[in-house]
Amino acid sequence: MKIALDAMGGDYAPHEILLGAVRAKRAFEIDLILVGKRSRIEEELRAIESADLLGLPDFAIIDAPDVIEFDQNPSSVKERRGASIRVICDLVKQGHADACLTMGHTGAGIIASLITFGRLGDVLRPCVGIPYFSMQPRTLLVDAGAMVDCKPEYLVQFARMGAIYVEKIWGIAQPTVGIMANGREDNKGNELTRAVFARLKNTDLNFIGNLEGYDLPNGTANVVVMDGMWGNVALKLSEGLSEQLLERMTKRFVEAGLASAAYPILQEFHAMMDYARIGAIPVFGVDGLMLIGHGRSHAAAVVGAVKSTMYALQVDLLGALRSGLSEPVPA
Amino acid sequence: MKIALDAMGGDYAPHEILLGAVRAKRAFEIDLILVGKRSRIEEELRAIESADLLGLPDFAIIDAPDVIEFDQNPSSVKERRGASIRVICDLVKQGHADACLTMGHTGAGIIASLITFGRLGDVLRPCVGIPYFSMQPRTLLVDAGAMVDCKPEYLVQFARMGAIYVEKIWGIAQPTVGIMANGREDNKGNELTRAVFARLKNTDLNFIGNLEGYDLPNGTANVVVMDGMWGNVALKLSEGLSEQLLERMTKRFVEAGLASAAYPILQEFHAMMDYARIGAIPVFGVDGLMLIGHGRSHAAAVVGAVKSTMYALQVDLLGALRSGLSEPVPA
Repeated sequence: MKIALDAMGGDYAPHEILLGAVRAKRAFEIDLILVGKRSRIEEELRAIESADLLGLPDFAIIDAPDVIEFDQNPSSVKERRGASIRVICDLVKQGHADACLTMGHTGAGIIASLITFGRLGDVLRPCVGIPYFSMQPRTLLVDAGAMVDCKPEYLVQFARMGAIYVEKIWGIAQPTVGIMANGREDNKGNELTRAVFARLKNTDLNFIGNLEGYDLPNGTANVVVMDGMWGNVALKLSEGLSEQLLERMTKRFVEAGLASAAYPILQEFHAMMDYARIGAIPVFGVDGLMLIGHGRSHAAAVVGAVKSTMYALQVDLLGALRSGLSEPVPA
Repeated sequence: MKIALDAMGGDYAPHEILLGAVRAKRAFEIDLILVGKRSRIEEELRAIESADLLGLPDFAIIDAPDVIEFDQNPSSVKERRGASIRVICDLVKQGHADACLTMGHTGAGIIASLITFGRLGDVLRPCVGIPYFSMQPRTLLVDAGAMVDCKPEYLVQFARMGAIYVEKIWGIAQPTVGIMANGREDNKGNELTRAVFARLKNTDLNFIGNLEGYDLPNGTANVVVMDGMWGNVALKLSEGLSEQLLERMTKRFVEAGLASAAYPILQEFHAMMDYARIGAIPVFGVDGLMLIGHGRSHAAAVVGAVKSTMYALQVDLLGALRSGLSEPVPA
């Protein structure tokens, strides 16, 4: 198993990415190809080696002179063939790697994978699914931000790809699928979601109908379908609200002189909310396997992201998506 | 000041509504007209009187034989002229009351006020604004659920009505207004919000541009504009997530044997999250003053809702909306 790893993508790249790569290489049977500015990578590896008693494992290094930063327009990836996030895709496309992984710019990753691999089968638009917190490890939110302006048929495909992921990766047979709306009743929702509702009812998916806001934290469905605009808002709102609550609560416990008693429990909740623990998520709907980890990943999260990528290869997620999507859909 | 109060609307009606009415009448200089099934109201008032040493204050009672339940189609209010939520509007329309108040069905309240009062000036669609938690008492989310399928021009009016409310009721001059999107940059958002962005930029509102999910709990803007579908989802998601977090945290403190130490702080947070504390919110964009309180209101929340209604009358919110909306808007 060979994974092309973007050494330059992420808030703490390249140092934490490479530290994670070293640890992943020791923990798993895996070939990692490090992609980025060769001189930077070699310099960082030497620094890691000098602080490490075990000696470095072997890595292949592929030079990529350019890197897409988080504040740059993701569309610029189209022209920047030398960007590390492009080169990791090329390595998969050319058969030098089985999958690629980045902690870099999500939007750029989606575009790079789309232009390199092309769309998978009949897929109209790619998307990304994100597990909703560690609090509800059985709920995948899809689309988490790839497609802002959606047509009903996109969302039906997002639902199907999400269900295949949940079945393959989480091992849940016949995962439940719901569409986010302003209430549970069948007639709720807006023009877009009502059209999606009507279509999902006629698929072989285990469709449980409309959901409402409470259902996301309550884990009512395994797959929660939203367009990428509102999926993005829902995730950031959840992250911001739980951070606010935990911060305020910590402050109150400190004021009440209960900080040390409360500390372990508050820490548990901080850890539960930590998106970096999720590992990496695949781009759905492109004809190649790219996974994207959290931009704020430190070394431990990089190890988790490598593990996610290996697992997606082991269960042949891409093959499952390909055959699941080409199944005839009753009209 | 006369307020027509729907005695039958709300999860704990009529008992808690009437108990709240008794307390409000003792606390404030206010005439309350109780509207609902006369025999039920009289029976409840006798029960309250027998348990109360102070003797009952005087109320006018107006009979309304019908009531819209929470699980009933709000549109049925159009035909049900005898429903208490219709009769309170009629009393305002006919000049017998200055404002009306219900803890009943929000959708039915909006429709009842719209068909009774008509639209205010040039308003295209009514909406409702809800303060986002007590945690951020300076953020109004509008629309909180009235209009699911919105055109850009509706949302521009929602922004304006929200700003007038914040200025009049919270006393904030030049309140900041933002539109919810999938990022802060000017080019973010979907087709609808991008069109709203372009229009809001050309108003005299203190428009601060696109917001993202974090900005709602962080209180970045005084008025956060969303369509009613996603405003509803954002509110329920926030409510569900904070309830989940507090419940799980309480459980952990109990397990750790720290329940009694942590209890006062956890209670503070429960109270902060309690929507019943918000009081009542007005229907924006109809030519009469109707306020809607939380369906789960107990007596204390009813007192708060009466207070909100009195305040809206004192500051002449309706007059401010009327003149604010008729101001010429630079194109």
